[in-house]
Amino acid sequence: MWRDLLPLGRSAASGGYRRYAWNSADADCRAWFRDQAAARGLTYEQDRNGNQWAWLGDPLAGQAVVTGSHLDSVPDGGAYDGPLGVVSAFAALDELRDRGATPRKPLAVVNFGDEEGARFGVACVGSRLTAGRLTPEQARELRDADGVTMAAAMEQAGYDPAAIGPDPERLARVDAFVELHVEQGRALDLRGAPVGVASAIWPHGRWRFDFRGEANHAGTTRLEDRHDPMLTYAETVLAARDRARLAGALATFGKVAVEPNGVNAIASLVRGWLDSRAADEDTLAELVAAIEAAARERGARDGVDIQVVRESFTPVVDFAHDLRDRLTALLAPAESLSGAPSTTAATASAPPSGATSPVPVLPTGAGHDAGILSQAVPTAMLFVRNPTGVSHSPAEAAGEDDCVAGVTALADVLEGLACR
Amino acid sequence: MWRDLLPLGRSAASGGYRRYAWNSADADCRAWFRDQAAARGLTYEQDRNGNQWAWLGDPLAGQAVVTGSHLDSVPDGGAYDGPLGVVSAFAALDELRDRGATPRKPLAVVNFGDEEGARFGVACVGSRLTAGRLTPEQARELRDADGVTMAAAMEQAGYDPAAIGPDPERLARVDAFVELHVEQGRALDLRGAPVGVASAIWPHGRWRFDFRGEANHAGTTRLEDRHDPMLTYAETVLAARDRARLAGALATFGKVAVEPNGVNAIASLVRGWLDSRAADEDTLAELVAAIEAAARERGARDGVDIQVVRESFTPVVDFAHDLRDRLTALLAPAESLSGAPSTTAATASAPPSGATSPVPVLPTGAGHDAGILSQAVPTAMLFVRNPTGVSHSPAEAAGEDDCVAGVTALADVLEGLACR
Repeated sequence: MWRDLLPLGRSAASGGYRRYAWNSADADCRAWFRDQAAARGLTYEQDRNGNQWAWLGDPLAGQAVVTGSHLDSVPDGGAYDGPLGVVSAFAALDELRDRGATPRKPLAVVNFGDEEGARFGVACVGSRLTAGRLTPEQARELRDADGVTMAAAMEQAGYDPAAIGPDPERLARVDAFVELHVEQGRALDLRGAPVGVASAIWPHGRWRFDFRGEANHAGTTRLEDRHDPMLTYAETVLAARDRARLAGALATFGKVAVEPNGVNAIASLVRGWLDSRAADEDTLAELVAAIEAAARERGARDGVDIQVVRESFTPVVDFAHDLRDRLTALLAPAESLSGAPSTTAATASAPPSGATSPVPVLPTGAGHDAGILSQAVPTAMLFVRNPTGVSHSPAEAAGEDDCVAGVTALADVLEGLACR
Repeated sequence: MWRDLLPLGRSAASGGYRRYAWNSADADCRAWFRDQAAARGLTYEQDRNGNQWAWLGDPLAGQAVVTGSHLDSVPDGGAYDGPLGVVSAFAALDELRDRGATPRKPLAVVNFGDEEGARFGVACVGSRLTAGRLTPEQARELRDADGVTMAAAMEQAGYDPAAIGPDPERLARVDAFVELHVEQGRALDLRGAPVGVASAIWPHGRWRFDFRGEANHAGTTRLEDRHDPMLTYAETVLAARDRARLAGALATFGKVAVEPNGVNAIASLVRGWLDSRAADEDTLAELVAAIEAAARERGARDGVDIQVVRESFTPVVDFAHDLRDRLTALLAPAESLSGAPSTTAATASAPPSGATSPVPVLPTGAGHDAGILSQAVPTAMLFVRNPTGVSHSPAEAAGEDDCVAGVTALADVLEGLACR
């Protein structure tokens, strides 16, 4: 199963994945999902927003337990971010079958479309649309770097952009959504644990900074006559790092677009995208304001005009405590199941202490479909150890033993939630 | 004539020109040149390197006087840089005809291909190939941003890339080359003069800085675990400006390419191109070394690897003094023609002093085909006032009166060099 998925959308040049919303690699991944559903005799359907579902049992026979993740990637991303959650979901269903567990509720595997937002700039489009947190009009008008609207991209891929929109009826049928994901940091590795449970997702957002100066000849324009937005951008990049360090938060400029982008032309426009995250929303707001202030101070000196547009924002997500505690209880060693209060599982900083150690509970800075859905349905996440901590890169990794441990943990959770 | 050329390759979005080597706008401009030659009964030919020539008189009947410039543009460039020299060349031939001047030497208008290097990154490809300052192998292997080689681009445009190479026989037939160009600065405007003569071109070059770090997730990677090349790039941009100011020189980062260039991914590679120029070669070498040292110092702190590649270098050009002095004499008011020593023309800093003031003689920081050819043939340049000083931008300008003054000056020069 994993082997079939691995080559899809992989760039020979970079070794990274280029599975972007509605491109041909995305279509290949979707075909793979259909094949996996068919091979298991699961009921396949695609919802109005292009998310794929594979049902074990009648989807309408009761409140469902759903697991899954996404198959798309960031530009030149790694193999695990997203796909591990979908592959593990199918594998966990296989495991339940092998165990002879009988689901009392419908079980589904889901692949949410366009989680990374690599092509159209907004993350979690599939789950946002479903949860009513992105309007169909907004989604259809999103444009990729070539100016292609999402509506046109959907049509080209054979989907009807007129069909998209909120899907409350579908969400109302979900009792619990559990997303398994490769960890995007080293917390599990530092604790020596193969699997963990999510406590919260930091609030995060994307801000586009437009620095507008004046195009001119790089070889003839006196330094004092310039309005060079590259200088203002550079100062802002350094300020973002410094301010983030002071705030104990994260701030990154990873994407830039320059006009006219000629070697011998002073730029007229530098567009830089800020990704920033912090433990709470106030800290985040203060951090972004401080970065903007630094940009404006330098812009005044450079004669460069600055516009800041918040392109997306995701509030803090505190995952449902009940479900989180059930997961940690289901994953705890047998002896602690019969007595230890599940609240010990919440002590994420507790050191490992042998067989009776609770499963680690950790916050994350990364956004997920689980975060989007958490406002509408009880939602939880499982993390699988990533020994390098690297993600969004071909270097992201998970050991085979840890992947198996993840599948076992997910099967335990599904069995506990749907079969008992 | 000017009106026919204006719309070719102009972007409706930016108002700027996108006439790049061997693209469709370039082909349109080349067709325009052929039409202008045909309309005047000039002998049209295209040389082995794709440069266009329009001859008045038998090209082989003696040592020729040649004038012209280029028709290609920087990304979103203005209307004057290049085209003014070609249009003025045709207009000057018209003026000579109207004056009844009879050339004693062959006269030619030339359009050198790919002067700006906007597509393949090397400037003055047409004149470099002709002068043997770029090998055919090097030229054919140049690649544009989409990975298309110049050889493939030439073939697609219907030209034979196997034909390119040095053309010493052609250059040996040129007695003088005079390029008229819109000024790319405000020196003439500050002096109140419509037309000037070039003294020298500053040495200049292009250096590609590759900053290699490690791609990672912008939302989960601790600041202290990052190898973010955007930080090193930003520091280098600011250092370049500071060092250039201290050296009384120019240094500009106007072009950037980022991988993977995703909003939520720390960059793995930032590639920045440095354009730098100074009054002499030693100052330029010291300046670039200082910028590189600043980059390496910051790179060591960021855990970012740096590679610097000099992509092009043009030594200082000191235009032929004899020809320059003939031009200034030909352009001086009648009274100074009969007595004033031509050397006064070289005092570029002399203030304007009424009707007897010599024509200003100025250095420039911009590279030109005239600079490339100056090692092989006596070469001179005329500049036409640019009231904004802006160039490489849709805002570059020249007044109609000044353009007419430029044509008159060019006709005076051609008459003096070829008809007396």
